[in-house]
Amino acid sequence: MVGYAFMGRAHSQAWRNVTAFFDLPVAPAMRVICGRSPEATRAAAARMGWAGHTTDWRDLLARDDVQIVDICTPGDSHAEIAVAALAAGKHVLCEKPLANTVEEAARMAEAAASAAGKSMVAFNYRRVPAVALARRLVAAGELGAIRHVRAQYLQDWVVDPDFPLVWRLRKDLAGSGALGDIGAHIIDTAQHITGQDLVGVTGLTETFVKDRPGGRVTVDDAALFIGRMSGGAMASFEATRFASGRKNALRVEVNGALGSLYFDFEAMNELWVSKGGGGFTRILVTEPDHPYAGAWWPPGHGLGYEHTFTNQIRDFLEAIATGTDPSPSFADGLRVQRVLEAVEQSDGAYKEITR
Amino acid sequence: MVGYAFMGRAHSQAWRNVTAFFDLPVAPAMRVICGRSPEATRAAAARMGWAGHTTDWRDLLARDDVQIVDICTPGDSHAEIAVAALAAGKHVLCEKPLANTVEEAARMAEAAASAAGKSMVAFNYRRVPAVALARRLVAAGELGAIRHVRAQYLQDWVVDPDFPLVWRLRKDLAGSGALGDIGAHIIDTAQHITGQDLVGVTGLTETFVKDRPGGRVTVDDAALFIGRMSGGAMASFEATRFASGRKNALRVEVNGALGSLYFDFEAMNELWVSKGGGGFTRILVTEPDHPYAGAWWPPGHGLGYEHTFTNQIRDFLEAIATGTDPSPSFADGLRVQRVLEAVEQSDGAYKEITR
Amino acid sequence: MVGYAFMGRAHSQAWRNVTAFFDLPVAPAMRVICGRSPEATRAAAARMGWAGHTTDWRDLLARDDVQIVDICTPGDSHAEIAVAALAAGKHVLCEKPLANTVEEAARMAEAAASAAGKSMVAFNYRRVPAVALARRLVAAGELGAIRHVRAQYLQDWVVDPDFPLVWRLRKDLAGSGALGDIGAHIIDTAQHITGQDLVGVTGLTETFVKDRPGGRVTVDDAALFIGRMSGGAMASFEATRFASGRKNALRVEVNGALGSLYFDFEAMNELWVSKGGGGFTRILVTEPDHPYAGAWWPPGHGLGYEHTFTNQIRDFLEAIATGTDPSPSFADGLRVQRVLEAVEQSDGAYKEITR
Amino acid sequence: MVGYAFMGRAHSQAWRNVTAFFDLPVAPAMRVICGRSPEATRAAAARMGWAGHTTDWRDLLARDDVQIVDICTPGDSHAEIAVAALAAGKHVLCEKPLANTVEEAARMAEAAASAAGKSMVAFNYRRVPAVALARRLVAAGELGAIRHVRAQYLQDWVVDPDFPLVWRLRKDLAGSGALGDIGAHIIDTAQHITGQDLVGVTGLTETFVKDRPGGRVTVDDAALFIGRMSGGAMASFEATRFASGRKNALRVEVNGALGSLYFDFEAMNELWVSKGGGGFTRILVTEPDHPYAGAWWPPGHGLGYEHTFTNQIRDFLEAIATGTDPSPSFADGLRVQRVLEAVEQSDGAYKEITR
Repeated sequence: MVGYAFMGRAHSQAWRNVTAFFDLPVAPAMRVICGRSPEATRAAAARMGWAGHTTDWRDLLARDDVQIVDICTPGDSHAEIAVAALAAGKHVLCEKPLANTVEEAARMAEAAASAAGKSMVAFNYRRVPAVALARRLVAAGELGAIRHVRAQYLQDWVVDPDFPLVWRLRKDLAGSGALGDIGAHIIDTAQHITGQDLVGVTGLTETFVKDRPGGRVTVDDAALFIGRMSGGAMASFEATRFASGRKNALRVEVNGALGSLYFDFEAMNELWVSKGGGGFTRILVTEPDHPYAGAWWPPGHGLGYEHTFTNQIRDFLEAIATGTDPSPSFADGLRVQRVLEAVEQSDGAYKEITR
Repeated sequence: MVGYAFMGRAHSQAWRNVTAFFDLPVAPAMRVICGRSPEATRAAAARMGWAGHTTDWRDLLARDDVQIVDICTPGDSHAEIAVAALAAGKHVLCEKPLANTVEEAARMAEAAASAAGKSMVAFNYRRVPAVALARRLVAAGELGAIRHVRAQYLQDWVVDPDFPLVWRLRKDLAGSGALGDIGAHIIDTAQHITGQDLVGVTGLTETFVKDRPGGRVTVDDAALFIGRMSGGAMASFEATRFASGRKNALRVEVNGALGSLYFDFEAMNELWVSKGGGGFTRILVTEPDHPYAGAWWPPGHGLGYEHTFTNQIRDFLEAIATGTDPSPSFADGLRVQRVLEAVEQSDGAYKEITR
Repeated sequence: MVGYAFMGRAHSQAWRNVTAFFDLPVAPAMRVICGRSPEATRAAAARMGWAGHTTDWRDLLARDDVQIVDICTPGDSHAEIAVAALAAGKHVLCEKPLANTVEEAARMAEAAASAAGKSMVAFNYRRVPAVALARRLVAAGELGAIRHVRAQYLQDWVVDPDFPLVWRLRKDLAGSGALGDIGAHIIDTAQHITGQDLVGVTGLTETFVKDRPGGRVTVDDAALFIGRMSGGAMASFEATRFASGRKNALRVEVNGALGSLYFDFEAMNELWVSKGGGGFTRILVTEPDHPYAGAWWPPGHGLGYEHTFTNQIRDFLEAIATGTDPSPSFADGLRVQRVLEAVEQSDGAYKEITR
Repeated sequence: MVGYAFMGRAHSQAWRNVTAFFDLPVAPAMRVICGRSPEATRAAAARMGWAGHTTDWRDLLARDDVQIVDICTPGDSHAEIAVAALAAGKHVLCEKPLANTVEEAARMAEAAASAAGKSMVAFNYRRVPAVALARRLVAAGELGAIRHVRAQYLQDWVVDPDFPLVWRLRKDLAGSGALGDIGAHIIDTAQHITGQDLVGVTGLTETFVKDRPGGRVTVDDAALFIGRMSGGAMASFEATRFASGRKNALRVEVNGALGSLYFDFEAMNELWVSKGGGGFTRILVTEPDHPYAGAWWPPGHGLGYEHTFTNQIRDFLEAIATGTDPSPSFADGLRVQRVLEAVEQSDGAYKEITR
C-alpha cells in the first residue's frame, strides 16, 4: 500500500478483515506500506498491521512477494505509481479520482488495458449494500425507464473561513476541490446505479472563501451541474463543502417510469424504494439476500463506513482470483474524469462528454 | 372570483374561513363567482358559499359591491382580466404563474404599478408557516451569508403515458409545463426565503412522453436549472411531473455560513434547522410565536394545504385595509416570469436575468 | 352546540365546512351556540357562524328547529346535557371522554340505547384518514393476527411547574388528567384499529408536580398501563403531559402476524405500513381511494387537525340521514370509561375490564 | 474466549481491531478460543484470528499466558465458567444476561466482588456512541429531572410459526425468551442513561406460538412491563420478537424537565435531542468530541454494529490497565437479573425490586 492517511487507514482495515467475513479463494498478506515520513510510516505499519514499511514506492514494485499495489495517495501521484505498477505486473487498486487530469487518467486507462494485472478504481460507495441493491433493482428493470437522477454530495468542513489551506484545497495537489473529491463519487454512483453515462453537462463552480490561513484557495468549494444521460435520463448534481450541518451526505434519488429509489449515506444502511407511485419503503439493507449483507451480521445490525472498503477488497480479490475484470475499471475512472473536466470548463455552457 | 376548479375551491375556502381565525379590520363578503359553464358555476357557488354567479367576468368589474377580483383561471387569461380589473379600480389577487409570457406579465406589472387597487400574485407556499419561519430566520441573519439554495418540486401525476392531454399539458393554455406550474413556485420560494434574486441561469427541459391520448404534449415534463443569485448564492432547481412516488414534494434547502434549513411540503408543518454545523432540528411550526400559527390551534395540531390560502387571504386583506403593498407583487411575479423564460430559452446555455 | 372553547371552535369549523367537501343528503344549519358568558358566547357565535346564542343549554332542547345537540363542554356536564337532549328527542354528539365516571357514562349509554335520536362520542382521531386506513387494513386481514398494540399520547404543556392550575388539572371538572384527556383517545384508537377490546390492564399513574399556581393538582400527569386484548394481542399505553418536546404525539404501532403499521399524529398525513417483515412504507394518505381523502385535495396536499372534525361531522350526518348507528357509540365511550377506571384503580395490580 | 457463534464473532472482531483505533496501554494477544466441536472451533480460530483452540474451557484457566477470559456462551454456562475463571485469577468479560437465574447471578457478583481480576458484563449497547452521549447529557443535567423512560426492543425473527425451536426458545438453555435476551438490554440501557434503578415493576409476558418444529417453546415471545425508578421516573418497557418489520429496534426515549432524547439502534449513528420543549435535533454522533467517535472516522462516516464491541473492549482493557473497575459490573448484571425475575413472576402484579 502507498499512503497511510485517511484512505490508508480505511483500506488497511479492509485488507485486515476481509477474510474474517468473506470466503475467498485467496487470502491477502499485508506485506509493506509506503509513506514519505519514515517514523510515521513505521507507526502506521505497526498500528494497521503491515509487516514492513518503506519510504520509496518503487520498493513495492521490486518485490516478488508483492502482487497487489493499493494507491491511497493524493491524486497528483496516481498516474506515475499506477502506470509503473502495472508495468511491473502488479494488480493495482487506485483511490479516486483516478487522476488530476484527463490526460493522466487516459494514460492510466491505456496502461490498464494492456496490462497483465487487474486494475480497479476505488469508488467505494458502490460497495455500500444499499447502493448495490439500488443498482440491482434498476438493472432488473424494477424501476422501468429511468427519467431522473438527482445526486448530491454535501459536506461542511470548510464553512469556517478560518479553516486552513489543507492539501485538498490546492489545485496542484488535489486537481480540483469539491468537484473532484466528492463530485467524482456522485458521478460514478449515478452512472453506476442507472447504467447510463452522462453525455453532456452544463455546470457552475464557485469558491466562496478565496483566501484562508495558509494561502490562496485554488480549487472550487462547490460545483453544480445538470446533464443528459445516454438512456434519456435527466441528471442533476451538486457537490459542496459549504452545506452547513451536512457531514457526509452523499445522496442519490432515481425516478423511473415504474418506481423510484432514494439513498443518503448519512443513513447508509437504508434504501428507500417506491413502486408504482406508492409511498417510499425504508428498506434496512441488512437481510441475508441483500448485496454483501449476508456475510456480516443478522438483520438490523448495520454496517459502518469502514465496511464499504472491506466489501470493495472482497470484490477486487474475487476478480483477481477468478481472472475476471474488476469494476469500476480505470476506463470507468477516465469517463468520470471527462465529466469533471467538462464541468470545470463549462461555466454555464453545455459541454458534450466525449467517449 | 373568476374560476371554480382546483384553485377556485382552495381560494373559496380561504375567503369563507379567514375571519373565523384572524382578527381583521375588514370582513370579506363572497359576492359572485364566474365560470364558463352556467350550471357548473351555479353549483360551485352553492357549494362554496358564493352569493351570486355569472359566466362573464366583466360583470364583476361592473359591480360596485365587488372591490376585489380573485383570478383563478389558467394562465392564458390572467393578463386580460387582471389589467381590466385594475383599470376598473379593483384590488386583484391573481393565481401564479402571473402570466404565460414575459410580455403579458410585464403589462400586468405595469398596470399594477399605476393602479389605485392593490395587487398580489398567489404564491401561496409563502404562507406555509414553516416557509414564513424560514424567511424570518434568514432575514434575521441566523443562517449567515447564504451559500446555497437547493429547490425541487417533484410530482408524478403524468408518469403514466396513458394519462390524457389535460390543459396543463398544452402550451397554448398553460404557457409551459412543470416549469411554469411548479417551477414558478420554487423560484419564488427560493428568492423569497433567501431575499436574493436569480441573476443568471442555465437549464435543460425535457418532454419524456410526447404523445398522449388527446394529442401532442406541447410543454415540458421536467425542467432542471442552476444559477447564481444576487447575494452570491448558488442555486439549483428541479421541477418535474415524473418523480414517481413524489406527490407534491416542494422542497427547499438553504445553506448559509452559520446554519441551514430544510423544508418539504409533504411534511408541511415541519421546518428543519441546523445551527453552527450541528444536527438538524425538526421544528413543528405550530407554536404561538410562529408565523400564522398563533391564530390556529394549540402546538402540535397541524395545518393542511387549504390553510396556506387562508393565511394568504389574511395578508391580502390586511394590506388592503392598512393601505400597504401586499407581497408578492405583480413585479415579483414578472421577475419569476423572466426566470421561466430564461430557462425555456437556455437549452444548456447561461442566460442572464434582466431586471 | 354547547361550549365555545377549543373543541367548540373545532366543531364549528366542521359544521360550517362539511357540505363544501362532502355530498350529503342533509345540510346542517348552525342555529344556536350556548355558553356561560353572554358576551363571550355572542362573540363566538359571530366569529364561528352561529345564527343565535344563549347561556342556557336547555334552550336548545326546547327549540323545534334544533335537531342535533353537540356537547363540547368539560366532562362533568356531559351526562346531564346528553341524557336530557336524548330525552328531548335530539341527536347528540358528545366530546370525549364520554363522562367523568363509569356511573355517568353508563347512564348515558343506557339513555342512548333507548332514545330515538342518534348518539356518538367524538373520538375525532378515528377520522384521521391515516387512522381510518389503518383500521381498514387490519379489518381486511392484511396484517394477520394482531400480536401487539403500542400506543402513546405524548404532550408537554405542563412540564413547567409554574404552569397554572387550569380546569384540566382539577379532578372535579376533568375527572382525571392525562389518563382521561388523552389516554382515552389512545384506548379508543387502539381498540378501533385492532377491532379488539381490552380485557384487563395493570397500570401506574403519577403526578410529578403536585402544587401549581392556583392550587393543588388533583389529577394524574401521566398514566402508563399494559394489558391483554380480546383477540389475544398484548397492549401497552402511555399518556403523559410531561414528554418535553412532544406536542401532540398520538402514536400507535400495531404488529400482526403478516405485517405492521405505525402512525404519529404529529405527521398526520402519513401511515407507515410493513408487509411480510419488509421495511416500512410511508404512505401519504391523500390518494382518492384513501378514507375521506377523495373529498379533499389532490394527492400530496395534506389535511390538518381541523379536518378530522369535518370528517367526523360528515359521518355523523350520514348516519342520521340514513338511519344507521354512528360509531363510536355511547356504549363504546362507556367501554373506554371502564378501562380508564381500571387504570385509575390499578396501582400496579391487574384489573379485569367488565363488559 | 469461550464460544465462537454470533457473539464470538463480534467479540473476536473487537479484540482484533481495538488497537488499530485506540491508543491503549496494553495490547491484547488472541491466544486461544474454546468451543464444543473440535473442527468448528479450529475453523473459527483460523477465520477470526485466534492462535490456538480447545474444546475444554478449563484449559484457558490453566494457561499462564491467558489473563482474560471472554465468555460468549449461552446463559446456562456463564456462572460456572465465570466463577472458576475469577477464582483462577483471570479478568472476565461475560455476555449478557449475566446468568439464567438470580441465584447464579448473585454467585457471580459475589465472586467478582472478592476476586483479584476485573469483571464486566457485556451490555454492548452502552458503547454505541449515541447511547454514551445520551448518558453524558443526562449526567450533566441537561435534561433536568427525568420523568419518563420509554424503552422498546423490537425484533421479528420468530413471527413465522414454522421457525424452528432454536436454543434461544428453550428455557433450559436460554433462561428466558425476549425478556432475558433483549429485555435485559433495555433494562440496562434505561438504567444506564438515566442513572436511576428500577425499584418496582408490573409486567405481562406471552408466548404467541407455543409449538414449533422441534418442540415446545418454553420461553416468552414478548414481555411488557412498567415500573417506577429510584429517582422518581416512570418507566415502560417492551421486548418482543413478534414486531413484524422491526429487525433490531432497540429504542429508548427519555423525557426530563428540561429536555428529551430519543435513540433507535436501527439508526445507530443518530441521537435525537430536544431542549426546552423545542423540536428534536438529529445529532449524527460522529464528531470528534462525541464518545468514542474521535477514534474512528471523520464526521458523517458512521459506525456499525461491530464497533460497539470494539468500544467495549477498549473500555475493558483501559480499566484493566489502569486498575479501575469496569462498568457495567457483575453487580449491575445482577440488578438487571432481579428485574427480569420480577417481571417473570409478576403476571400483572406489582413487584418491588430488592437490592
